[in-house]
Amino acid sequence: MGESKRIPVGIIGASGYGGVQLVKLLLEHPNVEIVYLGGKDSAGKLYSDIYPHLGHRVNFTIEPIDTDVIAARCQAVFLGLPNGLACDLAPPLIAKGVKVLDLSADYRFKDLQTYTRWYNKDRTDGETAVKAVYGLPELYREEIKSASLVGCPGCYPTASLMALSPLLKQGLIVPETAIIDAKSGASGGGRQGKINLLLSEADGSFGAYGVAKHRHTPEIEQVCSELAGHEVRVQFTPHLIPMVRGILATVYATLRDPGLVRDDILTIYSAFYRSSPFVKILPNGTYPQTKWACGTNLCYIGIETDDRTDRVIVLSAIDNLIKGQAGQAVQCLNLMMGWEETLGLPQLCFYP
Amino acid sequence: MGESKRIPVGIIGASGYGGVQLVKLLLEHPNVEIVYLGGKDSAGKLYSDIYPHLGHRVNFTIEPIDTDVIAARCQAVFLGLPNGLACDLAPPLIAKGVKVLDLSADYRFKDLQTYTRWYNKDRTDGETAVKAVYGLPELYREEIKSASLVGCPGCYPTASLMALSPLLKQGLIVPETAIIDAKSGASGGGRQGKINLLLSEADGSFGAYGVAKHRHTPEIEQVCSELAGHEVRVQFTPHLIPMVRGILATVYATLRDPGLVRDDILTIYSAFYRSSPFVKILPNGTYPQTKWACGTNLCYIGIETDDRTDRVIVLSAIDNLIKGQAGQAVQCLNLMMGWEETLGLPQLCFYP
Amino acid sequence: MGESKRIPVGIIGASGYGGVQLVKLLLEHPNVEIVYLGGKDSAGKLYSDIYPHLGHRVNFTIEPIDTDVIAARCQAVFLGLPNGLACDLAPPLIAKGVKVLDLSADYRFKDLQTYTRWYNKDRTDGETAVKAVYGLPELYREEIKSASLVGCPGCYPTASLMALSPLLKQGLIVPETAIIDAKSGASGGGRQGKINLLLSEADGSFGAYGVAKHRHTPEIEQVCSELAGHEVRVQFTPHLIPMVRGILATVYATLRDPGLVRDDILTIYSAFYRSSPFVKILPNGTYPQTKWACGTNLCYIGIETDDRTDRVIVLSAIDNLIKGQAGQAVQCLNLMMGWEETLGLPQLCFYP
Amino acid sequence: MGESKRIPVGIIGASGYGGVQLVKLLLEHPNVEIVYLGGKDSAGKLYSDIYPHLGHRVNFTIEPIDTDVIAARCQAVFLGLPNGLACDLAPPLIAKGVKVLDLSADYRFKDLQTYTRWYNKDRTDGETAVKAVYGLPELYREEIKSASLVGCPGCYPTASLMALSPLLKQGLIVPETAIIDAKSGASGGGRQGKINLLLSEADGSFGAYGVAKHRHTPEIEQVCSELAGHEVRVQFTPHLIPMVRGILATVYATLRDPGLVRDDILTIYSAFYRSSPFVKILPNGTYPQTKWACGTNLCYIGIETDDRTDRVIVLSAIDNLIKGQAGQAVQCLNLMMGWEETLGLPQLCFYP
Repeated sequence: MGESKRIPVGIIGASGYGGVQLVKLLLEHPNVEIVYLGGKDSAGKLYSDIYPHLGHRVNFTIEPIDTDVIAARCQAVFLGLPNGLACDLAPPLIAKGVKVLDLSADYRFKDLQTYTRWYNKDRTDGETAVKAVYGLPELYREEIKSASLVGCPGCYPTASLMALSPLLKQGLIVPETAIIDAKSGASGGGRQGKINLLLSEADGSFGAYGVAKHRHTPEIEQVCSELAGHEVRVQFTPHLIPMVRGILATVYATLRDPGLVRDDILTIYSAFYRSSPFVKILPNGTYPQTKWACGTNLCYIGIETDDRTDRVIVLSAIDNLIKGQAGQAVQCLNLMMGWEETLGLPQLCFYP
Repeated sequence: MGESKRIPVGIIGASGYGGVQLVKLLLEHPNVEIVYLGGKDSAGKLYSDIYPHLGHRVNFTIEPIDTDVIAARCQAVFLGLPNGLACDLAPPLIAKGVKVLDLSADYRFKDLQTYTRWYNKDRTDGETAVKAVYGLPELYREEIKSASLVGCPGCYPTASLMALSPLLKQGLIVPETAIIDAKSGASGGGRQGKINLLLSEADGSFGAYGVAKHRHTPEIEQVCSELAGHEVRVQFTPHLIPMVRGILATVYATLRDPGLVRDDILTIYSAFYRSSPFVKILPNGTYPQTKWACGTNLCYIGIETDDRTDRVIVLSAIDNLIKGQAGQAVQCLNLMMGWEETLGLPQLCFYP
Repeated sequence: MGESKRIPVGIIGASGYGGVQLVKLLLEHPNVEIVYLGGKDSAGKLYSDIYPHLGHRVNFTIEPIDTDVIAARCQAVFLGLPNGLACDLAPPLIAKGVKVLDLSADYRFKDLQTYTRWYNKDRTDGETAVKAVYGLPELYREEIKSASLVGCPGCYPTASLMALSPLLKQGLIVPETAIIDAKSGASGGGRQGKINLLLSEADGSFGAYGVAKHRHTPEIEQVCSELAGHEVRVQFTPHLIPMVRGILATVYATLRDPGLVRDDILTIYSAFYRSSPFVKILPNGTYPQTKWACGTNLCYIGIETDDRTDRVIVLSAIDNLIKGQAGQAVQCLNLMMGWEETLGLPQLCFYP
Repeated sequence: MGESKRIPVGIIGASGYGGVQLVKLLLEHPNVEIVYLGGKDSAGKLYSDIYPHLGHRVNFTIEPIDTDVIAARCQAVFLGLPNGLACDLAPPLIAKGVKVLDLSADYRFKDLQTYTRWYNKDRTDGETAVKAVYGLPELYREEIKSASLVGCPGCYPTASLMALSPLLKQGLIVPETAIIDAKSGASGGGRQGKINLLLSEADGSFGAYGVAKHRHTPEIEQVCSELAGHEVRVQFTPHLIPMVRGILATVYATLRDPGLVRDDILTIYSAFYRSSPFVKILPNGTYPQTKWACGTNLCYIGIETDDRTDRVIVLSAIDNLIKGQAGQAVQCLNLMMGWEETLGLPQLCFYP
């Protein structure tokens, strides 16, 4: 494919950590050309003034957000804005024929009442929301291929659902016993001057937050319920790790059949993810390190069973900014455009 | 109390992280004087050659281990050796009238069969073992006061049991639903040249280890079973945090009475720990940061209930080298000697 | 000394990292009682709302700044405000008989023109400034003892001057060859939501800032010039280390007499600091780790000579929040009150 | 270029950090195929047992070192062994027509007496050594193109010489005033179980090592002397940063012409590195962060002059494992094979 065949894409909200990760992935993507960066507060700024280390590769000025301009220039656009803003932009963009990949929570929910309850915002775009596809290719690959609007999953739901889905889909566990103890690096908190994200606060410390009330809970439950075939509630607890990147989800659940052993479940997971090039099932009681995933769009999964307690423990590791955010969005774009799913997505980690 | 009233104590195995922490605590302890440091491989070495930064305060040469010498010079001795060695030293030391505080796993188990199963070592000192008291003052304060041999708890069991005990003791939870997702800084792995503990490996990464088979499991279960009044099995998963010090235990359990709310449980915990000066129950949905505990002998506890899932989530944070190891041993010594429990133990953390 | 003999002290500006360190040191100080915390923006707040982990030890409400109230209640007061504010508070406080220890830059300069040039602020309190003593006890111990106003040194100047002073005082080096390459943990940047101090930015990275123009330069030069007996200019470059606490200064200078070897210089330093209990000169080519100083008021110094280049290299390590800030202020208070210099100041580091 | 046109290459010593970085770079290199991994102690091991996260991409068994086998299979070979071993392997390999890139110190010195003095090893391969080219493409691009044996530079010399070379080549500084204060992440210490490289030791600490005697000194001096046209001695001090990757060199030197200002020197550097695609000169007093270079083969350079001291300060940042080791070796291979210099080498950093 020649240079001329690259499709023009735009990014709205490129100044945060997910945004700059997306810019870097798209700069190396063989089929894409970034033709537009848009922002609200950052409009008018040189992108290389925000990120001086990219000065040798990009020469963008961030532009004001104008859906007509975007539609005139872009075949697809990534929305990386705070929650509650994409729902105003996506309907006109789709109407003008632009493919939209939203990285906020706005289009993750089938049921806007759930969204409204957890995000405190009324919505009037129910018709659009219902057309949106949840952008987790390992579960919704075919739907994404024909979607014009994708609601990209949150970082925690990505790690959690990758670990839980085969168990629920195959009916191996008692759904209501599922507990997700999740841990994330600080980049998940964004590029904003919050005291709790300062190195002096977060380095050398570890703690939980949002216990029993984090907004990623209903997102996880929506998919779990669909897989289980009935409404499922999960326990989800996020923690902040003193590092920049990476999520580990440690998932516990009680097996329906206590006779199942690790090897059985490894086989089931391997089958479940057979067509998913980014999922790596680890053998023989090897457990994933987040570092193995960092810099890649991969999800590493390790599995253990405990015959003393009849539980299965599944551990999944991702890079929260790639598989958990920007990389997964590119994976969705690849599917929407009919390209190879792995195009432009790194598979070799940054280790050490 | 004058200088002359300090009691003479010894430490065997002072070259590791727990050991140097113990040396520092005892150097500042008003009622104690270190008169003996013993070691196997390190015998003959100047302690300040191992720890140059202590050169201005200590002038010890590490001596060979000789129970006669120890008994002649020490009123109490701390054993900080690898598992399986204290059981040869404690019996003669006790016989010679020395109070013994063992920091290994050797004297944590009532039932030596459990020890043998998990630690792969046969034992012939059952008579001594049965006299040993489990050195968790918040649960066994009175027994420790009259003990001549204390088996100090492991770091993870300390954090886990501080979080779980009130729930089990008061019968608030279904015991077999208890899941302990624990996380520790790298100093818990000791001062030894292991690849996985290198900064280049562990920094910027997070992962689990010993899933469903860590040796601290039976130690936690022994106490839980005693509190519950019947045999209890818990799920325990340790993880390595990219930092030096601190443990956070996130404990999940299903409430027997789903009507219980956070305030009820806070009240119960406050009552349970009323006489425990090192336990700090956090108010109103505040969750502990490990950093708050680091440098102290404190255990911070935060509590949450989830009426969507009928679970209680308890979070406990300790400094693994102080409350999880050396500080708790000093706390036990204070009790054994009839001193104030808090003597010589720091309560203000190192933050930031 | 009984409880009743504690002197009442106040702190203005206690919500930052230097402030909370000072609070913790004074809480453990045997001769002092904190009776007043004052602040501007934080007035009215409960101190334990800012620092929940101190809730078990303090019950302060931050009060508005009122010099009459302070004078009525405090025998000594620490000012921990941003630069340019202490110069309005110190004159009335001194006039009312309160001993003042200022931790800002306001009273570090004999020559207010230098202050005005580097800090962009005109000053009218020249008479007060001239009475202020530079609070580096290792150089100005006697002056501090009789001072009513002490301008406490900056963190970098403390580390730099501890390393350089003996060389300059004894005329061992060519002063204008002095280069100070200094490195600090992020807590030196304060507890404020700056992007460059976020864990996601600073962790895993290292860089210089303020090259050839950092405000600590004239402060270092003022003392160097006094020691050398003529005006000296030094090269000073600060860097940000991806960690919380600690400063290392690597100081280079050309020896006047290339025949001097390391042992000679070690002897000279030991003599120079003979009466300084917090300075630890390391033997035999041992170089300081910042971690050895962290949690203490110590300054560790290592020395090397290079006969290939005729230079001496001096390395000094301090805890930037203790010897570099709060601890040094307490050391000054001890001297001003006629107490033992080491009172209430920790000498055993937090290692590991 | 088709798959069949990839040239076969081997790596001896691939189990360390430089080795695994090299493996990853070559796996993504379009013109190369790894056909041989050799090792001493690791021979017989599966490479994916050492690095489980690479199990999905590689299926290598490490083979014993046999120059006949290597010559039969490889067109080029990278030697990543400890110092003093390559000098036995390179002569037979070259004789058999294999292009050799040595990453140890063995072929960095023109004068083997210098090597012997600093590395304590006698050598008998002087004839081979004299043919070796120092693998710093920014200085020796043409020589590398026609070399059959390249001695790849050390990580510190790379960062130091990138910063110093234009100044020396253009005669802008007094050479003997050059001071290099260098700082490196812990991966530079290798993947070996050394106590000082443990996370518990190195995290949260900063210190110097090898002061006035590090082996990279003569390597830096050899090139500096050549550039200056006479023998030059530099002051070089390495420090360990509490992070994994990255080197920052802060270089100080006195300007011959104090009238030179930053803009002049920026112009000179830009011209000097005009044909060097991996060197990025930063504008206007922007100073490099190591993080900007991490994950890339780039060297970022920032420049400052100080008219108070007549010095120039140059800051250079590289990824020690890429531009400082494996990436630079690939850059040399590209030149030796007549390929584009940038082939297969990343230019977008891992940030955040």
